[in-house]
Amino acid sequence: MAVRVDVEFGAKDAFRAVKRGDLIIVVDVLRCTSSIVNALANGAKAVIPTETLKEAYRLRDQHPDYLLVGERKGRKPEGFDLGNSPLEFVPEVVEGRTVIMTTTSGTRALVRGRRAAHVLVGAFLNARAVAEKAAEIPHRRKVNVSFVLAGEKSLFSLEDFLCAGAIASEFPAGRFDFSDKALAAVLGFECVKGALSEYVGKSRHAKHLIELGFERDIEFSCMLNRFGTAPIYRDGKVTLMR
Amino acid sequence: MAVRVDVEFGAKDAFRAVKRGDLIIVVDVLRCTSSIVNALANGAKAVIPTETLKEAYRLRDQHPDYLLVGERKGRKPEGFDLGNSPLEFVPEVVEGRTVIMTTTSGTRALVRGRRAAHVLVGAFLNARAVAEKAAEIPHRRKVNVSFVLAGEKSLFSLEDFLCAGAIASEFPAGRFDFSDKALAAVLGFECVKGALSEYVGKSRHAKHLIELGFERDIEFSCMLNRFGTAPIYRDGKVTLMR
Repeated sequence: MAVRVDVEFGAKDAFRAVKRGDLIIVVDVLRCTSSIVNALANGAKAVIPTETLKEAYRLRDQHPDYLLVGERKGRKPEGFDLGNSPLEFVPEVVEGRTVIMTTTSGTRALVRGRRAAHVLVGAFLNARAVAEKAAEIPHRRKVNVSFVLAGEKSLFSLEDFLCAGAIASEFPAGRFDFSDKALAAVLGFECVKGALSEYVGKSRHAKHLIELGFERDIEFSCMLNRFGTAPIYRDGKVTLMR
Repeated sequence: MAVRVDVEFGAKDAFRAVKRGDLIIVVDVLRCTSSIVNALANGAKAVIPTETLKEAYRLRDQHPDYLLVGERKGRKPEGFDLGNSPLEFVPEVVEGRTVIMTTTSGTRALVRGRRAAHVLVGAFLNARAVAEKAAEIPHRRKVNVSFVLAGEKSLFSLEDFLCAGAIASEFPAGRFDFSDKALAAVLGFECVKGALSEYVGKSRHAKHLIELGFERDIEFSCMLNRFGTAPIYRDGKVTLMR
């Protein structure tokens, strides 16, 4: 039987995908999942997402050697080592380090999806790799796939929708049965894949980030298939499990 | 200031658009709004949408000369003159007649949107005409525009999403500010406009209609801009107010 592919449009809807028993792909292109993918690709050992600032500070107190990163309202909170700009996660800073990350939406979606049997971290940066990993797991065990778009305030995010389309468009034909939402996402992506950053730049959240001076983050986050890694969230940590 | 264009993905969300005070464009391509557009273009005097079968039967008892049309689970209910196939609404049958219509989702979305100051009926068949009418009203008074996609069971419907994109893509550039959902709908439509019925045919609801033998309805409902009419729902009736 074909693997069903569906999409939840908001972080708060992660629970539905968990309830269905689906493999979850969390997408928050601007900027949480792009930052996680880049941090791990650049040698970070693990990323620990937390929902709250309080929890992030507490973890850091317990582990002073961990990096503390993330944002509130787009900006780096007090006492944090790094913000949520994927470009900050360079090898000189992150290599060999464990990273505590808390963001407004992305890390929240991850934590809320933690009861799913499989949680992958997706971005344009690793679209094909995530698709391959997501196609391999249902092949071994019968599970369906749900994207959880983690855009801010649980609103529909154009950039995450297009990214779900980018990933879904890499699923091997025939074995996957797309819901109407998944079909729409693939169509949207196919339409703009030649000019991703231009279209992502029209989104509400991109405009906000441009106002804050993070235009380069958008360019970077739109680099399709820059990395061949598919981070997995398990036991409270995101890693590049091999 | 620019006119804000947003999209509600389910009939049950019509109330949000009403609350915002928006002009509402109800879209249920398969098949309610396509049927209404065709009925009026072929000379029907008015279409009266009802939420329930009971109300439809009651109205017909009061007005034996009205046509009684619609569907439940895709099929014509007992005692109805016509089903919900746009192709049934030929001039020989509908000319000069008032039509009572009840469908699973489309007429419900209309009735639920009735408190909006302006409610237009949109389909591929009249995409450009609806866009022109919808652009003209906010020009005179400051209102924003919301699409209400009325697809079955308040699920996201690919065909209605693409149709919202078809209509929005006709809005004059510059004066309209698209939400992320509206942008995504336009992208989807732009991507498939050369092969509309092929893509609409991949949707969940189209597959169901094909099983029921209504394949020709899909072909017909995908005829872009066949009519230059923009039906308005007001005081309980849908008409071609000039």
